[in-house]
Amino acid sequence: MPYVNVKVTREGVTADQKAEIIAGVTDLLVRVLDKDPAATFVVIDEVEVGDWGVGGLPVHEYRRRKQAT
Amino acid sequence: MPYVNVKVTREGVTADQKAEIIAGVTDLLVRVLDKDPAATFVVIDEVEVGDWGVGGLPVHEYRRRKQAT
Amino acid sequence: MPYVNVKVTREGVTADQKAEIIAGVTDLLVRVLDKDPAATFVVIDEVEVGDWGVGGLPVHEYRRRKQAT
Amino acid sequence: MPYVNVKVTREGVTADQKAEIIAGVTDLLVRVLDKDPAATFVVIDEVEVGDWGVGGLPVHEYRRRKQAT
Amino acid sequence: MPYVNVKVTREGVTADQKAEIIAGVTDLLVRVLDKDPAATFVVIDEVEVGDWGVGGLPVHEYRRRKQAT
Amino acid sequence: MPYVNVKVTREGVTADQKAEIIAGVTDLLVRVLDKDPAATFVVIDEVEVGDWGVGGLPVHEYRRRKQAT
Repeated sequence: MPYVNVKVTREGVTADQKAEIIAGVTDLLVRVLDKDPAATFVVIDEVEVGDWGVGGLPVHEYRRRKQAT
Repeated sequence: MPYVNVKVTREGVTADQKAEIIAGVTDLLVRVLDKDPAATFVVIDEVEVGDWGVGGLPVHEYRRRKQAT
Repeated sequence: MPYVNVKVTREGVTADQKAEIIAGVTDLLVRVLDKDPAATFVVIDEVEVGDWGVGGLPVHEYRRRKQAT
Repeated sequence: MPYVNVKVTREGVTADQKAEIIAGVTDLLVRVLDKDPAATFVVIDEVEVGDWGVGGLPVHEYRRRKQAT
Repeated sequence: MPYVNVKVTREGVTADQKAEIIAGVTDLLVRVLDKDPAATFVVIDEVEVGDWGVGGLPVHEYRRRKQAT
Repeated sequence: MPYVNVKVTREGVTADQKAEIIAGVTDLLVRVLDKDPAATFVVIDEVEVGDWGVGGLPVHEYRRRKQAT
């Protein structure tokens, strides 16, 4: 009865890629833990890059500075 | 001081239904656990059907196949 | 296909109270949103009082000061 | 390797305020727990006021009644 | 910079199985979304069966009734 | 009415450090967003190192390999 939440930055993830992630995570839990796929939920959240911070900076700013160095 | 997060697929949930869920969850925690309603937060997340997976498929695809069988 | 996460402080919640919360939240979503109970997950997290903050203080300290006033 | 999720109501939080929250939370974890900022994620979720409940009411209704008293 | 949270019932998941889940989810996000594994966090939560509800019942009770039918 | 969830690995975080995190996050939200501290919840989750993955490995294994290189 697993529940999986996948958070990624919103940067053009396609419906096909989401379907691939849902299928891949579910298969993994079926294979490793013998879970029932019909009782396995996968919820994908896309987070705006300005709402995701790393290194103390919003992601876009973090990347810009990293590339500048 | 409870915090409750309710995730449902985004399929036309109305403001009245949300208010009913907020009231119902709060009343339940007041009644069962004697919590203070003013210190009870309920956050509702509506998730796009393409972002919710079950049975290894996005919800809409999962339902389509189930109806086809 | 709802997923509900209920976070409360760990202060002697009994198995019966948890069962009541699970039943109550599920009934609510069935009644208000016509959800399928078999596809409704409710996960309860009990959080140690020292791990829950409000008013800038851990809960037990927050309560102690409130009572002192 | 901390992960921090900040949920606030969507009420005009600016990009600068978000950057300040990301910086402040990261600095705090570096200072108090000696965490590596490059391995510290901060994710901000803005929640519509109609999706956030307190006192058994959606936030806007809760505030309206409080002001009326 | 993905963050993945996997919630499963606490029923004897081994350290090897957890490592397999962490590796599998990370590989999936690298393969499908070209994510950097060093910036991919996977957090596994094991939830007591009495704290997980489905069908309006704690999991163990839900299973017991299902087997009885 | 913010809700903040802080997840860190369980590695000897003290009660004082938790209190400092709760105070620091709350002060930050009061200062930047003018939030009411009495309506600001901070929940700290300590996650076992074997339950936290990065780079496709449980944290302890990830660190061991990094140090070995």
